[in-house]
Amino acid sequence: MKPVKVGLLGLGTVGTGVVRILEGHQEDLSSQVGSPIIIEKIAVKHADKQRSIEIDPAKLTEDPWEVIRDPEIDVIVEVMGGVNGTREFMLEALNCGKHIVTANKDLMALYGSEILAKATEKQCDVFYEASVAGGIPIIRTLIEGFSSDRIIKIMGIVNGTTNYILTKMSQEGTSYEDALAEAKQLGYAEADPTSDVEGLDAARKMAILGTLGFRANVELSDVQVRGISSVSKEDIAYAKRLGYEMKLLGIADRDEEEFSISVQPTMVKKNHPIAAVNGVFNAVYVFGEAVGETMFYGAGAGEMPTATSVVADIVAVVKNLKLGVNGLKSIVPYKPKKLKSDEQICYKNFLLLQVADKAGVLAQITQAFAEYNVSLESVVQSPNADTPDAEIMIVTHRASKANMDQVLKYFEGLEVIRRVKSVYRVEG
Amino acid sequence: MKPVKVGLLGLGTVGTGVVRILEGHQEDLSSQVGSPIIIEKIAVKHADKQRSIEIDPAKLTEDPWEVIRDPEIDVIVEVMGGVNGTREFMLEALNCGKHIVTANKDLMALYGSEILAKATEKQCDVFYEASVAGGIPIIRTLIEGFSSDRIIKIMGIVNGTTNYILTKMSQEGTSYEDALAEAKQLGYAEADPTSDVEGLDAARKMAILGTLGFRANVELSDVQVRGISSVSKEDIAYAKRLGYEMKLLGIADRDEEEFSISVQPTMVKKNHPIAAVNGVFNAVYVFGEAVGETMFYGAGAGEMPTATSVVADIVAVVKNLKLGVNGLKSIVPYKPKKLKSDEQICYKNFLLLQVADKAGVLAQITQAFAEYNVSLESVVQSPNADTPDAEIMIVTHRASKANMDQVLKYFEGLEVIRRVKSVYRVEG
Repeated sequence: MKPVKVGLLGLGTVGTGVVRILEGHQEDLSSQVGSPIIIEKIAVKHADKQRSIEIDPAKLTEDPWEVIRDPEIDVIVEVMGGVNGTREFMLEALNCGKHIVTANKDLMALYGSEILAKATEKQCDVFYEASVAGGIPIIRTLIEGFSSDRIIKIMGIVNGTTNYILTKMSQEGTSYEDALAEAKQLGYAEADPTSDVEGLDAARKMAILGTLGFRANVELSDVQVRGISSVSKEDIAYAKRLGYEMKLLGIADRDEEEFSISVQPTMVKKNHPIAAVNGVFNAVYVFGEAVGETMFYGAGAGEMPTATSVVADIVAVVKNLKLGVNGLKSIVPYKPKKLKSDEQICYKNFLLLQVADKAGVLAQITQAFAEYNVSLESVVQSPNADTPDAEIMIVTHRASKANMDQVLKYFEGLEVIRRVKSVYRVEG
Repeated sequence: MKPVKVGLLGLGTVGTGVVRILEGHQEDLSSQVGSPIIIEKIAVKHADKQRSIEIDPAKLTEDPWEVIRDPEIDVIVEVMGGVNGTREFMLEALNCGKHIVTANKDLMALYGSEILAKATEKQCDVFYEASVAGGIPIIRTLIEGFSSDRIIKIMGIVNGTTNYILTKMSQEGTSYEDALAEAKQLGYAEADPTSDVEGLDAARKMAILGTLGFRANVELSDVQVRGISSVSKEDIAYAKRLGYEMKLLGIADRDEEEFSISVQPTMVKKNHPIAAVNGVFNAVYVFGEAVGETMFYGAGAGEMPTATSVVADIVAVVKNLKLGVNGLKSIVPYKPKKLKSDEQICYKNFLLLQVADKAGVLAQITQAFAEYNVSLESVVQSPNADTPDAEIMIVTHRASKANMDQVLKYFEGLEVIRRVKSVYRVEG
C-alpha cells in the first residue's frame, strides 16, 4: 500500500526518539496501519550538525516552510518547541491540509483552541498526547477512557524536574538550592529553571488537562500558580513528621459546574497513591464520579517515552487517514467555563507561624480563625530553640480560600505574630 | 438527531450501573456524540424482580432473543455473564448487524478470536474494556496508547478478591481462611470462590492482556496458573521480613518474539509501584521498550467503575456509527504465537525448606543448585523452634523454570530435606 509520509519539525531529543521508533518498529507499525510510515523531510536549525542517529542528508532542510508546504507530506510532527513562529507553522500546515502531531504543551496551552478550531475547519487531526506527562497516555484516557464519566478531580505530578528536587529534599534532607544544582548537573533542570520551579510548565499542562477533564475551554490565565522555590528543608521536615509528602501538584477540581485549577506545593497524605511518585516520574490521579479513584503513572519526559506518545499519535492519524475520518473526532469543549470564586475554593491548610512566646498568644490566634469561620484540625505550639519566640503549627479543616486570605491578612496586623513562615495546601 | 438505541442483556450489578450512567449523564453523553443514547430493551431472568432502580416494565423481557433480534436496536450490551449461551447470543447479534459491548472476560478469553472474526466479517464493533480491571481503561491503552511501542512485560493485579485477601493477611497477620471468610462477608468473594482464589479469573484477564500486548492470539490454556490457597501466614511473614509483598500477579513477558504468561502468588519488592496496590484495587504495570515503566491503577470491579468502562465503549461505538467506520478498527493479532519453553522462562525464586538439623546439609543443598546451574542470591539457615529440624530460606538469582524444576525434583530424593514448604516467584 502507498506509504504515509511524515515531515518532522525539529530533531532534538524527542525528534530523535521519533526517528528511532519509526525506523526500529517499522514492521510492527505497518502491520497495524496497513502501510509503511516514512519520514520524508526534517527541518532542523543546522543541517550539518553531528547527530546520534544516521539521517540521509537529503532529508534535512533548514527551512521549515519547505516541510510544511511539501505536497507529498501527509502528517507534520512538531517537536521543535516554542510558541511564536511555531503557531504560524501549525496554522499554515493546517491550511495546507496536513494533520498535526505535536509535543508542545506551551503551544497547546496558549493557542490550543485556535489551532483545534482551524483543524476542525480544515477537517484535519491535531493530536498532542506527548504534551502532557510524556509517555503516559493521559489525554486519550480523559477523552476516550472516561468519556462516560463526570470527572470531579484531577491531581497531577506533571513536572519531573520539581518532583526530582522535592524527592531529593524529602529523602536525603537536601536543601532546595543543592537539589536544584544536582538536577541541573543531571540534565533534569535547564540552565534557567524558572519555568519548571515556578510552576509555569505544570500550569500549562494543567490547562490542557482541565480543558479535557471539564470539557470547558480552560486558559492558562485561569490557573493559579505557585512554584517550589520557597519550599524549605524545614517545611519538608514538618510535612514528614505529620505523615505528608511535599509535592508540586496541579489540582483541578469541581463542584457541580464550577471548577478551579491551580498548581502549588502541596502536602499530600503518605497513604495517597500520588504521594509515592518519586524522582522524575509523573503521575496523574483522576477521580471520577462513577469510576472513583484511578491513577496513571510513568515517565514524564525523556527521548523515548515522549516519542512513544508522538508515534502513537501518528498511528492514530494514519488509521484515520485509511478510514477517511480525520478531523472528525476532536473534542471541542462544549461547556461554559465557570470558575469558582475564592469563597467556593475550599481545602485544608498547613501553617507554620513564628510567634511571641507569651501567655494568651494561642488564644489570640485560634480566635482569629474562629472569627473567619476556619475550623482547626490540630494546633501544636513548641518553643523555637534558636530564638526567644515560639512556633505554632496549624492544620485547618477544609476552609474557603477567601476566609483563609482574611485570616492571613488579619495576622499581618497582629503584633504577637512575628512571621507567617509557611502556608501550604493539604490533600489526601 | 436520531437517538441511538441500546439493548441490554442482563440487569445485575454492572447492568444497573450502565442504566444509572446512561440516564444520569445523558446530557454530557449526547453533547459528545451528537444524539441521545437510549435503552430500548433489557433482557432479564425475572421481569418482576424488585430492583434498586426504576425501570419502565415495558422495556423488560425474559427473552434475550427479543433484544438481540430487535431491528430498532443498534448496540447490544452484554452484562449477563456466562459463556455457554452467551457465545451464541453474541454471534447471532453480530449476524443481525448489531455492535457489541461486553464486560465478559470469560467469553473474551475463551471465544474472543471467534467473536472478533465474526465482527470483522460483519463490519461490527466488539468492545470489551470492562472485561479486564473494571474501571481502568487498560485495553484502550494497550491498543492505542502504546500502539507505537514494543511491550516487554505486563504485570497485573487483576483480581480484587485475592488482593483483598493477601492485603488483609499482610497488614493484619490474618490467616488465609479468616481473610477469605471476611471477603465473603463483605461481598468481595463469592460463595464458591474457586475461580478467584485459584487464579482462573486472573488467568482469563491475562489471556486478554497478553493477546493485546503481544499482538498474538494468546489462549487461556497458554496461561500457567497457580492460585493463593496455599499461601500461609508464615510465607507472608517471610516475604515482609525480606522486604517483599505477596501479590497474586499475572505476568506476561517476552524476549524477542517468544513470550510466556502466568498467574501465581509472587513476592514483589516493596519499592516496586505494584507492591503498594492494596485491598480490592487493581493495577496493571506495563513495561515498554521505549516508554519504560508505566502503571495504571483503579477500581477493578464494582457497579459504577465497571459501568464507566461499558458506557465509554458504548460512546466509542456511537462515534464510529456517526462516522460510518464500525468494525474497521479492531485489533486482529497478526503475530505468530511463540510460547517460551521452560528453558527460556527465567525468574528469581524464593524457597523455604524444612531440613534435618545436622552438619553438611547446607552443603548438599547448595551443591544441588550448583549442579543445575541455579545461582543463589541469599541463603539463611535458622533452627525451627517447634521441631528438631532447621529451616533454610533461599532466594535464587534468575534461573530457568526447567532448571528449577530439576532442583525441586532432585530435592524429592534428598533425605536431609524433610519438606519443601514454599516456592514463590520473586519480582522487582
